[in-house]
Amino acid sequence: MAISTRSDLEQLDREDPLASFRDEFFLPEGMIYLNGNSLGAMPLKAAERSRQVVEKEWAVGLIGSMNTAGWYALPVTLGRKIAPLVGAKPNEVVLTDSTGIDLYKIVAAALQIQPERRAIVMEGSNFPTNNYMVQGLVEQLGDGYTIRFAEADELMDAIDEDVATICITHVHYKTGRIHDMAALTERAHSVGAAAVWDLCHSAGAMPVDLNVCNVDFAVACTYKYINGGPGSPPLLFAAERHHGKCFQPLTGWYSHAAPFDFDRDYRPAEGIRQMLSGTQPTASLSTAEIGIDIMLRADMNTIREKSMRMTDLFIELVEARCGDHDISLASPRNAEKRGSQVSFFHDEGYSIIRAMHDHDVGCDYREPGIMRFGFAPLYIRYVDVWDTAEKLREILESGIWKESKYSDRAAVT
Amino acid sequence: MAISTRSDLEQLDREDPLASFRDEFFLPEGMIYLNGNSLGAMPLKAAERSRQVVEKEWAVGLIGSMNTAGWYALPVTLGRKIAPLVGAKPNEVVLTDSTGIDLYKIVAAALQIQPERRAIVMEGSNFPTNNYMVQGLVEQLGDGYTIRFAEADELMDAIDEDVATICITHVHYKTGRIHDMAALTERAHSVGAAAVWDLCHSAGAMPVDLNVCNVDFAVACTYKYINGGPGSPPLLFAAERHHGKCFQPLTGWYSHAAPFDFDRDYRPAEGIRQMLSGTQPTASLSTAEIGIDIMLRADMNTIREKSMRMTDLFIELVEARCGDHDISLASPRNAEKRGSQVSFFHDEGYSIIRAMHDHDVGCDYREPGIMRFGFAPLYIRYVDVWDTAEKLREILESGIWKESKYSDRAAVT
Repeated sequence: MAISTRSDLEQLDREDPLASFRDEFFLPEGMIYLNGNSLGAMPLKAAERSRQVVEKEWAVGLIGSMNTAGWYALPVTLGRKIAPLVGAKPNEVVLTDSTGIDLYKIVAAALQIQPERRAIVMEGSNFPTNNYMVQGLVEQLGDGYTIRFAEADELMDAIDEDVATICITHVHYKTGRIHDMAALTERAHSVGAAAVWDLCHSAGAMPVDLNVCNVDFAVACTYKYINGGPGSPPLLFAAERHHGKCFQPLTGWYSHAAPFDFDRDYRPAEGIRQMLSGTQPTASLSTAEIGIDIMLRADMNTIREKSMRMTDLFIELVEARCGDHDISLASPRNAEKRGSQVSFFHDEGYSIIRAMHDHDVGCDYREPGIMRFGFAPLYIRYVDVWDTAEKLREILESGIWKESKYSDRAAVT
Repeated sequence: MAISTRSDLEQLDREDPLASFRDEFFLPEGMIYLNGNSLGAMPLKAAERSRQVVEKEWAVGLIGSMNTAGWYALPVTLGRKIAPLVGAKPNEVVLTDSTGIDLYKIVAAALQIQPERRAIVMEGSNFPTNNYMVQGLVEQLGDGYTIRFAEADELMDAIDEDVATICITHVHYKTGRIHDMAALTERAHSVGAAAVWDLCHSAGAMPVDLNVCNVDFAVACTYKYINGGPGSPPLLFAAERHHGKCFQPLTGWYSHAAPFDFDRDYRPAEGIRQMLSGTQPTASLSTAEIGIDIMLRADMNTIREKSMRMTDLFIELVEARCGDHDISLASPRNAEKRGSQVSFFHDEGYSIIRAMHDHDVGCDYREPGIMRFGFAPLYIRYVDVWDTAEKLREILESGIWKESKYSDRAAVT
């Protein structure tokens, strides 16, 4: 097969049914931003919404905005809105708190399905905050609870009848490898275990169908591919069949059956509201709606097709043009098994990424030696794929990355 | 003593050393806003800061702002900044998460001081989310943990050698009654119990000296008297002597000893950072700094003097002018024992508050029959005290509150 040219990629951009979405985002002039898997770009309307929340709803509406601007209901109304994006029913999702805290809540809730069991299956190499949160929960619960760590190939075998729940990240933050959510969930259910999924690197980047997969609980970041803004509260999913049966322990007033009765004692809300805790950071939460609205207008299958094509092309171009420079693919080669990112390994990946930053490509580094390139299909163009591979080639060929200023381990996220 | 006149109050405003602070806030024309104890008014500069965070730091700086704009460090840098406001050392405070979740963390941490003890003393009538969160913790811990509820007069006697920790709200949300933090903490320590304090209705409204009182852990809202914006993350205080000894269980990556090493297993950070969990809602957190900065420029003793004088005057004026209308004081009469709010009881308080709203006074209602008026000394004037008492008199005398539109129980917060 002939290697693609820049003209081929320009042609793909002209034919791209998602092309117009790029105009809805602010992207700094001259920069190629491939960190959308860390923090999505700003939708232009998010600036408007943020001004509205602060300068109208807060300044003018003041505390009345709890009702008149819908602040109090935001976790539920935004959950209802975002639900179809992950194949959930409108009453199964809220937006609230932070990813780690939500994970703590849903694992605690999932453990109530098989209260006699003590093992939680996790992938040790996944984004470590998940391990840390569940380690905190396990230590707090005591009583024999334990995490059984298993890597990708070992997961199926690790799920046996001692397992209370699995807690797995759908797309690996470092390599972009996709787990088979349906198969692992089915395996869990076949031995009576629950299935908790972290969708941080899949929600907004590919079709996710929690109810088709029969998932029990899930959490998903909204500030990566969903472009909700820095630290915007994640979505928390609890399957309707667990409502009123599996409770989370961070029982603040938002999760009470009658929060405005100010009763002394806790009574759980019946539906998804039991998964809430307390008052939410309104500016961050409200602004997230803009990114959600944009995402809901895009066809998820089209997003996935473009994502696979871009990442395929990036692998093809980097291997063809940078193949002599001790770079090796760290992501699955099969696009079906890969999220919307490509990772390459290089012993000196850190310095190379620093040099890429200096040449206006946003991408990032993860120990050891992993160079991550995230392709957010709503605003990244095919020519960006070409230009990134070309910049990488230039940097590798010139050896500029060997300059000492790029090896200083200060400030890369 | 002669009853004050409006001219007397105008004179007090002219002499008020805090008067110029009012110009730093946006206050809707023609409205008297006495809900600063629910949501503080917007500092004008908060609008600028919010635009900066969204339209520059997010839009232009993108993920690089984690470092270049200091996003990653915000919980610690803002904690360091706000610490003197509550008599804490700079390394004893972080801004993070929500009040309820922080309370869960610090009570869980406090229980580790006397791990054999099982009782937690709380005031049943305090803001119920505190009860709910601790009830959630107690249920999760099992193993005999229990809450011992006691009301104000019973608290001292309730603190005995079975008590692991007290968890008490400094200023009562409904009546404004102040607890003696020094005496109750001393009592707790005298029997070997820890002392956890909720400062939601005192921080920013009066001098608070956590270290002089020898408090172990505390939480304080930043969106009430500190004017941090809707749902801005609270401050969490952990006394230095407990760092590295009492751990909180929501162990996200922000609380790890080396978060960017991405180790599989949790290792707690040594200092106050162990009290953090995960990624924070940056827009809400960053904007909070403006309110904090303003508060730090104001002298807290002057704030307290003005607060006591305003609330004394309000009681005097309401009793003198509305005394024939079945209203009774529900707050302590002695200003020394009263926070920056005044509550009155009336059987039909709900309808009266609705009518007050309709006449441009922001104040609120709490069951049963409690009408709350909060006086934020940075932007409320003495003439506002007069005008509020006068509006209340007009509404009571006219009987307008009896109109059916005011008794509809829909939308008062």
